[in-house]
Amino acid sequence: MPRYERPIATVDAALFTLVDGGLTLALTRREREPYKGQLALFGGYVHTDEDEDTAATARRILREKGGIALSYLEQLYTFSGKVRDPRGWSLSVAYYALVRPHELQSGDARQIELIPIGKVPALPFDHNRIVELALARLRGKASYSSLPAFLLPPTFTLSQLQDVYERVLGHALDKSSFRRKIESQGVITPVEQMVRGGRHRPAQLYRLSDRHLAEFDRLISTA
Amino acid sequence: MPRYERPIATVDAALFTLVDGGLTLALTRREREPYKGQLALFGGYVHTDEDEDTAATARRILREKGGIALSYLEQLYTFSGKVRDPRGWSLSVAYYALVRPHELQSGDARQIELIPIGKVPALPFDHNRIVELALARLRGKASYSSLPAFLLPPTFTLSQLQDVYERVLGHALDKSSFRRKIESQGVITPVEQMVRGGRHRPAQLYRLSDRHLAEFDRLISTA
Repeated sequence: MPRYERPIATVDAALFTLVDGGLTLALTRREREPYKGQLALFGGYVHTDEDEDTAATARRILREKGGIALSYLEQLYTFSGKVRDPRGWSLSVAYYALVRPHELQSGDARQIELIPIGKVPALPFDHNRIVELALARLRGKASYSSLPAFLLPPTFTLSQLQDVYERVLGHALDKSSFRRKIESQGVITPVEQMVRGGRHRPAQLYRLSDRHLAEFDRLISTA
Repeated sequence: MPRYERPIATVDAALFTLVDGGLTLALTRREREPYKGQLALFGGYVHTDEDEDTAATARRILREKGGIALSYLEQLYTFSGKVRDPRGWSLSVAYYALVRPHELQSGDARQIELIPIGKVPALPFDHNRIVELALARLRGKASYSSLPAFLLPPTFTLSQLQDVYERVLGHALDKSSFRRKIESQGVITPVEQMVRGGRHRPAQLYRLSDRHLAEFDRLISTA
């Protein structure tokens, strides 16, 4: 066996959701030193006695520290080095997920703080770098996939769909080119039912097409 | 400090290059147990006393075990769990790179075995999974970037450019749509000099455009 010390091995998780005005990050206050009492990503040690792998570590930490049950998180990047943790040479396997608001609302409200992504404070360790990379990855993925649509109810209007893309991407989209793109990619399928919008004519409702439900399954199950 | 044992922390590197007919993977014979004498990816322990981070671990391992000097490798994915290494719960931060043939030829030839990617044998640990994911990532990236062009000399013909894309991607490309795509994206710039090809008319030579040299810099410096 090697002569040198093994690194500290941790997992951190950046969870995003939509709350009111926009994209929001779930943080928690650290219960222990270092940085006790500060807002940080959900994170903790790999427990080699009980975790199957680091994805299981991430799920366990969210369950134990936030009461959050997630079946899937995507691996983001592994941050490592001598200086990122005052306890010594460390390595953090970072995960991220875009979750539906109710997946956080069913968690332990005392442990979860939802911060709009424009208002994330200075975080301990290299957590701000992790958040930045997670956000870039999420937006990169959102712009070529149906991912944001999974924040919507099963049926939705085109306006609602555009709204959720804009909130995830963080900028406005041109209405006609958005609709052209969505329609040309066969992302959505019209459903029979119509919404009666006050004095306006009823808006057509849509659902995600079967093909895109399948795409999403591939998306979330690819390493 | 935690009560449980820290995981074994290693780094593995999948290096690809072009040799003769196609895409080739650099492997090495393991000098120690487990799997002593078997072909495997270049890999080894994180040395917390000397490595700045896991990228530095990857560069050190390639230098020490293969005489290979690389300034950049891209992080691929972190593989982890109880069962992937017979020594115990382990975590391997995997890296990959597409390198120019001379970068391997200047290495220690006794330590490097170049295997065409269609002929990679069963490898120890989960190294076949690492190779599979690295190859998928490389091809995904190659198909929307100028990455494969960096295997060419500074000036090249359109045929040479198409050839190198086909070798990296592993399938034939339609000549006219390839040229249309390359030209519409402004990947290349014609250069003055012409090649005299025997009885054929001289072929136009190109170089990568400045914009795409810049794109490549971004590509290789993005986490």
